[in-house]
Amino acid sequence: MCDTCGCHTSGHTEAKVVEVHQSLLAANQKQADANKQHIEAMGAVAVNMISSPGSGKTTLLEHTLDRIGSRLKIGVIEGDIETERDADRIRKKNIPVVQLTTGGACHLDAPLVHKGLHALEHQSEDGKFDLIFIENVGNLVCPATFDLGEHERIILVSVPEGSDKPAKYPTTFHGADTFVITKTDLLSYFDFSIDEARQESLRINPELRILETGAPAGIGLDEWIEYLLQLIAS
Amino acid sequence: MCDTCGCHTSGHTEAKVVEVHQSLLAANQKQADANKQHIEAMGAVAVNMISSPGSGKTTLLEHTLDRIGSRLKIGVIEGDIETERDADRIRKKNIPVVQLTTGGACHLDAPLVHKGLHALEHQSEDGKFDLIFIENVGNLVCPATFDLGEHERIILVSVPEGSDKPAKYPTTFHGADTFVITKTDLLSYFDFSIDEARQESLRINPELRILETGAPAGIGLDEWIEYLLQLIAS
Repeated sequence: MCDTCGCHTSGHTEAKVVEVHQSLLAANQKQADANKQHIEAMGAVAVNMISSPGSGKTTLLEHTLDRIGSRLKIGVIEGDIETERDADRIRKKNIPVVQLTTGGACHLDAPLVHKGLHALEHQSEDGKFDLIFIENVGNLVCPATFDLGEHERIILVSVPEGSDKPAKYPTTFHGADTFVITKTDLLSYFDFSIDEARQESLRINPELRILETGAPAGIGLDEWIEYLLQLIAS
Repeated sequence: MCDTCGCHTSGHTEAKVVEVHQSLLAANQKQADANKQHIEAMGAVAVNMISSPGSGKTTLLEHTLDRIGSRLKIGVIEGDIETERDADRIRKKNIPVVQLTTGGACHLDAPLVHKGLHALEHQSEDGKFDLIFIENVGNLVCPATFDLGEHERIILVSVPEGSDKPAKYPTTFHGADTFVITKTDLLSYFDFSIDEARQESLRINPELRILETGAPAGIGLDEWIEYLLQLIAS
């Protein structure tokens, strides 16, 4: 097992690796449990957004903030290996945002997100939020192993990536609450089968909620916003 | 440091992790060096293709095999977490192909590729090849740390993913020989700047060769094939 990603590795399955892996994941889980309490003390619900690079996480957030950013207290934690680019995009919406750069790591972990929560609190007068988005590092594999303390885990796959992705990345879909198919405004240009994506993902995880969005064209945003409002209300 | 991905991790930088990481990477490098000798004994040049899921690695391979699959001895090693789907696509081209499924791991490593080389040899009468493609697991981060014994490392980013990817994933670009921008036939539908992608990737790695392809439309394939032929001849 990999100590960071939690994946099963080939060629190096020594007991030492398993031991280190288990201790790291246990430490992450302890901090994740604390994060969840912290988030609830902030009055918020948190969602962890996981996808490959370029699946449209930041774009979906931009359109979300345009719709509900002025009537709800929303905070955003951006995770990237390098650069402040995603945070710069969100900052233009006048929303509290924290950029976490991992300096190389392929995922966010709970201790890093804990720092992000404190930094977010300092950007709010009363430290309170309705909804906190955690945009994970662009990677469809490794972030799936690390609980960050979120209430809802959202996996995004864009139409250009192909509808075979649920079958090829089952662990990621198994651990998710919601699957958002993004860039559906481009369906006519790609060989993407909505049916295949739905069937394969539900085969892996029958409880999965599935949404379809094409954010720049406004497709599916009403349903997406309704889903977020239900999360906050529940 | 992460013991599998080699990434710098936050919140768990204990000496034990560093020690395990170093020993795993050293073992991988030893096997990678042996793989390179093995590949050369097979008469071949090997390329390691790294990208996010859905960047078009398999599609580029399909079009490559249509062009030169009958006049060169080409073998393909497909790396995926689960499924034989990519190997099934390549098999239709009547080319020796081996599917390696990592069972969860976020990258190929040298010991697994060594098994793949042996399996590939068994599909050739004389065990000889001109060119071996190793299609890594879809992940722009973790595969970059693991030498597989390849002669050339190719990073692919597709137009739908966005031209900010070199700046956001510098380690991956730093270690590459060639950067292929794929799906350029879709440039008019996306906010992708070829100039930004070129400038940012060359800032990270001034020696990088950059190619542009839109395989289904035949764009850039002459230059791509010429590049492969030069690799074999060198």
